[in-house]
Amino acid sequence: MPVLVMKFGGTSVANLDRIRRAAKRVGVEVANGYEVIVIVSAMSGKTNELVGWVNETSPLFDAREYDAVVSSGENVTAGLMALTLQEMDVPARSWQGWQVPVKTTSAHSVARIEEIGTEAINGKFADGMRVAVVAGFQGVSAEGRIATLGRGGSDTTAVAFAAAFDAERCDIYTDVDGVYTTDPRVCDKARKLDRIAFEEMLELASLGAKVLQTRSVELAMRYKVKLRVLSSFEEMSDEAGTLVCDEEEIMESKVVAGVAFSRDEAKLTLIGVDDRPGVAASIFTALSDAGVLVDMIVQNIAEDERTDMTFSCPTVEVKRAQHALQAACEKGDLGYADLVVDDAVAKVSVVGIGMRSQSGVASKMFQVLSQEGINIKVITTSEIKISVLIDRKYMELAVQALHDAFELERAE
Amino acid sequence: MPVLVMKFGGTSVANLDRIRRAAKRVGVEVANGYEVIVIVSAMSGKTNELVGWVNETSPLFDAREYDAVVSSGENVTAGLMALTLQEMDVPARSWQGWQVPVKTTSAHSVARIEEIGTEAINGKFADGMRVAVVAGFQGVSAEGRIATLGRGGSDTTAVAFAAAFDAERCDIYTDVDGVYTTDPRVCDKARKLDRIAFEEMLELASLGAKVLQTRSVELAMRYKVKLRVLSSFEEMSDEAGTLVCDEEEIMESKVVAGVAFSRDEAKLTLIGVDDRPGVAASIFTALSDAGVLVDMIVQNIAEDERTDMTFSCPTVEVKRAQHALQAACEKGDLGYADLVVDDAVAKVSVVGIGMRSQSGVASKMFQVLSQEGINIKVITTSEIKISVLIDRKYMELAVQALHDAFELERAE
Repeated sequence: MPVLVMKFGGTSVANLDRIRRAAKRVGVEVANGYEVIVIVSAMSGKTNELVGWVNETSPLFDAREYDAVVSSGENVTAGLMALTLQEMDVPARSWQGWQVPVKTTSAHSVARIEEIGTEAINGKFADGMRVAVVAGFQGVSAEGRIATLGRGGSDTTAVAFAAAFDAERCDIYTDVDGVYTTDPRVCDKARKLDRIAFEEMLELASLGAKVLQTRSVELAMRYKVKLRVLSSFEEMSDEAGTLVCDEEEIMESKVVAGVAFSRDEAKLTLIGVDDRPGVAASIFTALSDAGVLVDMIVQNIAEDERTDMTFSCPTVEVKRAQHALQAACEKGDLGYADLVVDDAVAKVSVVGIGMRSQSGVASKMFQVLSQEGINIKVITTSEIKISVLIDRKYMELAVQALHDAFELERAE
Repeated sequence: MPVLVMKFGGTSVANLDRIRRAAKRVGVEVANGYEVIVIVSAMSGKTNELVGWVNETSPLFDAREYDAVVSSGENVTAGLMALTLQEMDVPARSWQGWQVPVKTTSAHSVARIEEIGTEAINGKFADGMRVAVVAGFQGVSAEGRIATLGRGGSDTTAVAFAAAFDAERCDIYTDVDGVYTTDPRVCDKARKLDRIAFEEMLELASLGAKVLQTRSVELAMRYKVKLRVLSSFEEMSDEAGTLVCDEEEIMESKVVAGVAFSRDEAKLTLIGVDDRPGVAASIFTALSDAGVLVDMIVQNIAEDERTDMTFSCPTVEVKRAQHALQAACEKGDLGYADLVVDDAVAKVSVVGIGMRSQSGVASKMFQVLSQEGINIKVITTSEIKISVLIDRKYMELAVQALHDAFELERAE
């Protein structure tokens, strides 16, 4: 029988009633002739409660104990889901990460999956079991300790199972009904995409579209796992949700697939930095050691052996960045004349595989923004993405104008 | 280093603050030079919440899934306790049942421990770890599935660890400060016992003194584990609590150690039962199949090839018992003229190892009750226990009178 992976996030299993609704969807796929692997998250709120307890107990916690505590939420849902399916006369059982086993690295709380054992579950499928319910987000290290994959790790678990069991598809059930051209709360013309390429999804995910965890998309791309994002709260149909797939499977793709944005960005500029080899390394090593997530980086033209270095980071990390740079300065690792912070900026990006083969996307983007009177502060580009930093107050306007200009409200 | 087992029940780890207080006690024993194995229950209320979810999901649940769900509460406490100890600079780590491993039978939800692996934990002790925090109440079956030991199973876990690791003592921390001659709420002269013999504790536990789980006492008796019951909420001292030990270690034991009682009993009498071989088997097989916990059984003198059969059970099980007997009657397994139920009785028992060598305890007990005008409805005796059923309204009076008559308020 073909295998299907179905993953249910925290809001989809938030209580017994929702677990029952999710189980019904699983029942439908069993009736459709699939052997189903269900990956479950913890009931929504549970993981936060557990994380809160750990943080209160031990602010600099032992990540191995963190994992032992935090993984328990998924175990509860897995057992309850298996029981619910059994009540519907669907032969099912639950599996915890160590039982499968899901072998991971020992990087506790941010572990990576190394291998998934298929023998035990396939043996049960051969015995007539139709659904394996697996606790997401967790595995077991070579030392035999529980290791978690980091927040949102259940998406990654789901894709890894789909790859290991050669599943026909991996359906990610969540509280949104798919991937949109942009956030409908910001632009009411936003349209749900039927399909999106892995690369585009990857850019959108890393740009803050919270539909899928970035790592799960990377993994799906590497193993060519067809990934579908859909809502637990809508009618089931073959057309539901958005299929994330290889670009070859998208017949006519538009130049731009979507407009992404990130509201709480800050722009920091170091003025008068010594322009010598290794200075960039000193700056960004100091920031990385302090755990600052630097996003865009621009080096301005040097004059008089001095240069300006601009970078962006989330606003919540500005203080940490300032401290780190000051400390590096005091240690003599680094010299600069001034540090200017602008913490009222936002990032807006256009993403699309079509850019690879079509020029003029950047100029069109800059033109649209200029027509709206929006000043661009920083620009970075990749093969399939152009991002700009602008004043935060213009963010909505920019997203709407770009959505219009690239005609994203029209179906392909 | 000598090994000490310390077990903390649900109220002793009910929240982070209580876990911290429990951890301090562990810290004291580490400073005293022990390698400590800490057995933890789930935070109080958590197991009930999980059991409630399982029952609501699937009234006739798959016990393997029940176990997978319900065992998660202990895992959370174990991790939090290990973190708390680490914060106090005590080298500690948590262990779940399958990690130790605690090997159990496959009788899910009522599993028995078959073997405890000591290698992994002893290896860590040799490496300098001072405290192994173990999730109580759980183990792993030969099939690799989580199995729980039944409610109160953490006491059994603790004693089994004490036996496996040849511990100097097993301290059971709970919310009462020891074992009393009787319940202080019923008799204000009740006195805490410094020591009690295993056999006496066993009778008291099975008679409803909820201090220790019966199986844990059996296990302690078999492996000669010194068991101490003490409160998490009182000052630590060597004299705290009650030591449950071999009778040889109790210098001068009294004839009667304590008075136990059980309030919600019912007496059922089958009148006019055919007096033929196998009739008792038919009756009690029917009851046992229906899950009725029959306690006392008395067969009255037969007349005319018919006999009366009386037994007691908890009042909550009366309806189930009636149905079971009626069904057996309709099936033709059994014949009787009438079934009389008295659901307003209580059981009062006196327990003491001294009875073995001293006669007259029964006659004294009956005399005391008769002096108070209390009618005895059923009597059963064992080597070290005499139990009577009486009208429930006289229960307190009977307990107090017996406590006085056997001079239990005076220390040995």
